[in-house]
Amino acid sequence: MERREFLKAAGSCAAGAMAWRGKLWAAPADEAARATMQRHLATVEAHLKKGIVPFWFERARDKQYGGYLTNFDEQGREMPCPEKYVNTQCRLVWWFSTLHRRFPEMSGAAEMAAQGVEFLLKHFWDEKYGGFYWKVKRDGSELDNAKIVYGESFCIYALSEYAMATGDRRALEYAARTFDLLQKYCTDTQHGGYLENVNRDWSPEAGGFAGGDRKGLDTHMHLMESFTTLYRASGDELHRRKLEQQIDLICERMIDKATGCGLNQFDLAFHSLPAIAIKRTWNGERMGEQPPEPVDTTSYGHNVELEYLMRQALQAAKKDEEPYKATLKRLLDHALDNGVDWEMGGIFRDGLRATGKAIVLEKEFWQHSEALPAFLDGYEQFGETRYLDGFGKVWQFVQDHMIVKELGEWRTLLDRSGKPIDGKIGNPWKVCYHSGRSMLESRERLRKLLA
Amino acid sequence: MERREFLKAAGSCAAGAMAWRGKLWAAPADEAARATMQRHLATVEAHLKKGIVPFWFERARDKQYGGYLTNFDEQGREMPCPEKYVNTQCRLVWWFSTLHRRFPEMSGAAEMAAQGVEFLLKHFWDEKYGGFYWKVKRDGSELDNAKIVYGESFCIYALSEYAMATGDRRALEYAARTFDLLQKYCTDTQHGGYLENVNRDWSPEAGGFAGGDRKGLDTHMHLMESFTTLYRASGDELHRRKLEQQIDLICERMIDKATGCGLNQFDLAFHSLPAIAIKRTWNGERMGEQPPEPVDTTSYGHNVELEYLMRQALQAAKKDEEPYKATLKRLLDHALDNGVDWEMGGIFRDGLRATGKAIVLEKEFWQHSEALPAFLDGYEQFGETRYLDGFGKVWQFVQDHMIVKELGEWRTLLDRSGKPIDGKIGNPWKVCYHSGRSMLESRERLRKLLA
Repeated sequence: MERREFLKAAGSCAAGAMAWRGKLWAAPADEAARATMQRHLATVEAHLKKGIVPFWFERARDKQYGGYLTNFDEQGREMPCPEKYVNTQCRLVWWFSTLHRRFPEMSGAAEMAAQGVEFLLKHFWDEKYGGFYWKVKRDGSELDNAKIVYGESFCIYALSEYAMATGDRRALEYAARTFDLLQKYCTDTQHGGYLENVNRDWSPEAGGFAGGDRKGLDTHMHLMESFTTLYRASGDELHRRKLEQQIDLICERMIDKATGCGLNQFDLAFHSLPAIAIKRTWNGERMGEQPPEPVDTTSYGHNVELEYLMRQALQAAKKDEEPYKATLKRLLDHALDNGVDWEMGGIFRDGLRATGKAIVLEKEFWQHSEALPAFLDGYEQFGETRYLDGFGKVWQFVQDHMIVKELGEWRTLLDRSGKPIDGKIGNPWKVCYHSGRSMLESRERLRKLLA
Repeated sequence: MERREFLKAAGSCAAGAMAWRGKLWAAPADEAARATMQRHLATVEAHLKKGIVPFWFERARDKQYGGYLTNFDEQGREMPCPEKYVNTQCRLVWWFSTLHRRFPEMSGAAEMAAQGVEFLLKHFWDEKYGGFYWKVKRDGSELDNAKIVYGESFCIYALSEYAMATGDRRALEYAARTFDLLQKYCTDTQHGGYLENVNRDWSPEAGGFAGGDRKGLDTHMHLMESFTTLYRASGDELHRRKLEQQIDLICERMIDKATGCGLNQFDLAFHSLPAIAIKRTWNGERMGEQPPEPVDTTSYGHNVELEYLMRQALQAAKKDEEPYKATLKRLLDHALDNGVDWEMGGIFRDGLRATGKAIVLEKEFWQHSEALPAFLDGYEQFGETRYLDGFGKVWQFVQDHMIVKELGEWRTLLDRSGKPIDGKIGNPWKVCYHSGRSMLESRERLRKLLA
């Protein structure tokens, strides 16, 4: 739309318009690139329509207890689901809500979301101290009453999206109350940022493995994500302001100035620390307490995810993107240049910050999901075809190896060549927040670029 | 008490006890010092009993509209009081409350405090957005609905003291609600600390003269003061945690590492700035917008005030004082060495940080008030007689020149030699929070040292 208006304003002066377009709207719309994007759009839309959307509509609802089932094997068969994590329940609330918001004609999405919201408010909400518990048993009974900011953030994200999709005021009120509780109990008024791991009564968790003395990019990035959606839903100036503070905090304190990569973990004063597995994280829960990792690694997946979540945050907060462009570009380029496996396709897990060299060559689902809209973001902002090539390399690998063809959802973990290491489609953390959002966001970017 | 127990434990080994005492309880109790302190205690107690206490009992109550009158000339005569500031109303709520708490047998103090609390909750509390307005007209009607964190902090301080004095739960609830509002609206989650100047709806004030883009030691120090009292009243772990963060924020970001002095004003990221007069401060309201002051000055009065408010905060928060002792000592010593006028008595207003040289030689009431308990703090902690000498130099000057003899309250501003520049006893900011607290705190320290 903007581009069309621009071209109209440029009138018939085609040469001038081309020069301007190169400056203002950098992506070249040459025919080869258009044809590539057309092809990607077709495969993305088909995968959504025939894969991810029906997969979760058919399986996610827990007909026995309410809420969602999350665990499915490589054949898409239901596996035991003894635990329900707040973040994963919220990821599916978000998913069905956003489907309803983006495709109002799609039947059943609002109902699927509503029963997740009902389970969430009934079993996770803490009537005594406020906030949402970390996890419950399948039937909703008590399991782990801790307040983990990563999880609280997903509650804000999901309930805000649900409120936007359905107009439900109560959901927005719970989102805003959770936001308020974070401001009251988790803000670090000495150093900025938020405490991430607290007990049921919001007192800090112990240090070390329980993470009470650490801050991380992951949680702070997801807070930026949820404040983006909260502000879009509420229009409340306070939410915009705290979103803005979160963007600048991440830029100033959590991104390595030398390499442009995201750092991982920090002490409370934002000194970068060798990462450790923390108790209530996916790695921490599987692997238990482990020795610290070398401090000089970076996650290509977090870098690209950070790029596009930050760009969405800037747009929601109505901030000028220009001063942030160099930061966004460096996040993308480090992953594009070093993380993309230009030989075998896909994107590696982790690499060295300084040299960029990949050191964990496995291919995990979520980094692939996040790379796709991020590289389209790069193409849209900077107009360089290599971002489109990066998208192609990752998306082809996903189609060839990650997606279980008959089911249309993604495996968890592959080796470098694409051989499954963990073929499960759903686990207590995974569901379709990454893969589904990736397809929705890629679809929208491709349509915009082709418009 | 502690000392008596210590001496008992040391038994009859007098020499050993003396050596230990020198180490653990550093103040020498030689007879000359004891005699000096006895004399000071007598003058302090007499001044309280015959001066400050009756002065405000007789005059403070606004019989027409409720709340307090604050403006009195050098003869103690009532002057027009068209405006009631929230901080000054709170200073008198605090005063009468603390009298009731410290001297339960004193009749009338609780009632004097209660009628101030009633006026505060009726006319200053904002039913729509929460928090207390900055100022109202004498009859309580609307005048300036802004939320100034300095003022909100005095509400927390006064209501917490009132709650401790009287057991009033409602006052403590308002104090805690105000604390919560600060956490929600004023925490700077990018840099730490608090925004200080906001509008009625808690949105930030404009930058520059309105102060929306500045932070200052004054407000952050008074937040430490009010969180100290709030935590003592509530016992709520959250209040303790935020108090602890405030102590360390001030130590790390607001004290000059090179000289040990307090800095004055900062941008939001805590870079030290040349101080400007800010709109809703005592100087800003009298003088209007002014060019910035040189950045390398320090306020001797703020340094000594910071020392003893920080020590009280450490004790309330049950933190080990040892790691802070060097910081506390430097604050005291810079003022003792450079701010005390060893020739004419009293303490200067402002000086240069680096050389210590005094450059504003006037003698203002509040710096004298704050120096007294601070220097006794120094004597108690470090056992050096020069702190007691500093106390003597300041207290003698106050008795000789500042106190209006027939009335027993303090003038506002004198020249170096003690000649009145502003002889008024009460103004819209002054009342007896500084002078009265100084006497109460000095009395308690002297009694403890003499015990």
